[in-house]
Amino acid sequence: MKPLEILPVPGVPEVRKGDDLVELTLRALTSSGFVLRDGDVLVVKQKIVSKAEGRLVRLSSVKPGPLARKIASEQGKDPRIAELILRESNRVVRSGHGVIITETKHGYVCANSGVDRSNVQNGYAALLPKDPDRSARDLRRGIERRTGRQVAVVITDTFGRPWRKGQTDVAIGCSGIRPLKSYIGKKDKFGYNLRVTEPAVVDEIASAAELVTGKLTGVPLALVRGLDYEKGEGGASTMIMEKDLDLFR
Amino acid sequence: MKPLEILPVPGVPEVRKGDDLVELTLRALTSSGFVLRDGDVLVVKQKIVSKAEGRLVRLSSVKPGPLARKIASEQGKDPRIAELILRESNRVVRSGHGVIITETKHGYVCANSGVDRSNVQNGYAALLPKDPDRSARDLRRGIERRTGRQVAVVITDTFGRPWRKGQTDVAIGCSGIRPLKSYIGKKDKFGYNLRVTEPAVVDEIASAAELVTGKLTGVPLALVRGLDYEKGEGGASTMIMEKDLDLFR
Repeated sequence: MKPLEILPVPGVPEVRKGDDLVELTLRALTSSGFVLRDGDVLVVKQKIVSKAEGRLVRLSSVKPGPLARKIASEQGKDPRIAELILRESNRVVRSGHGVIITETKHGYVCANSGVDRSNVQNGYAALLPKDPDRSARDLRRGIERRTGRQVAVVITDTFGRPWRKGQTDVAIGCSGIRPLKSYIGKKDKFGYNLRVTEPAVVDEIASAAELVTGKLTGVPLALVRGLDYEKGEGGASTMIMEKDLDLFR
Repeated sequence: MKPLEILPVPGVPEVRKGDDLVELTLRALTSSGFVLRDGDVLVVKQKIVSKAEGRLVRLSSVKPGPLARKIASEQGKDPRIAELILRESNRVVRSGHGVIITETKHGYVCANSGVDRSNVQNGYAALLPKDPDRSARDLRRGIERRTGRQVAVVITDTFGRPWRKGQTDVAIGCSGIRPLKSYIGKKDKFGYNLRVTEPAVVDEIASAAELVTGKLTGVPLALVRGLDYEKGEGGASTMIMEKDLDLFR
């Protein structure tokens, strides 16, 4: 049983389209005095990935359609934001109380398709990365190439959840780590067979990292050190519940 | 920006009805070489709280009613377990694919009203503590009385969630810490006003702790050290979404 360290990594400058996240990450680690170790998990907030990938949209360039205008007026939102939310979604899951909950093109269910104006330049909105698992894989491979260390990367966003107030950070992309840890078929000390137990390790990592990065510190990176995790690919998108098993469709 | 340590605390024996959790916790901390500090957060798995509070039910004593028998047969469950699930619930939210999702008497929405046969003696099932916030408060006060340290206590359980596979640990009780950290009305560096941002800190703590305790290690305690949190009462139950704001009722 090892202690786990959750280390905030400051020193990432304002990220611009085309910036090399591998380079920025390694520089931030170095300037914070961290030397990567095999097994480290690097937790990266979605916003800097979106910025590097050019996923900022100038709101004045967005022409809202009739449905966006309707939903915007019902929910008291900027119609251009509503338009982006709809464009980024497969479907609207619920709307009400000023919130539009959608299923994103990736299949994640969250508020506003992840479209967000916080921590971006005025007049712009950030969209989620197009393929956050690929973004995580590219970053992991780049870091491993440059450092020779085997690491995992988790890209996080802040999601609300039904029935409970507040939000927690969850993984929207990951690489180098199995997102779920399966205990299925394992027995506890009384011989009881665990049938459904699969901790969503990458979501727990995302939440742990949020505790040190916060929302206003300008720290978009954290290092999780000492975690005993299962290596593997698959990506965070493999956590999306299959339609025919989803009791909440 | 401080590093955060998540420390597993082994050394808690099998807990029995009437056991003094304050005493057991302090002994486990001492035998693991930990000395409590002001600001430490003690994370406690629900199961040992339930055991200490006598919330184990002998299944042979449970007489399933007609509804329990019906749901049990539909979902392939033990009818006595289904009966306990119904007794512990306000309502069934969904059922299907072998799962019964309920709102518990406390108001939490989770699988099986939290009724669980894992890590308990054969032939028994554990129910959630009757009032986990009170359990957390009692434990915190007892620890503070004995040690003179100001700590927070978070009692956790493992909950599934809609749309995503796997589970994360969440807080079902807490004391000495504000469950949500509100950024509402605060501005980011671009002057953008955060309107809904309230990280569910106690849920993130619960998830972080799960990373070190796991499900089969027999470690029901973790210490979160170095967290900058807001003190306060309120309890985890204040995170339950009000009915009239709940888009998923």
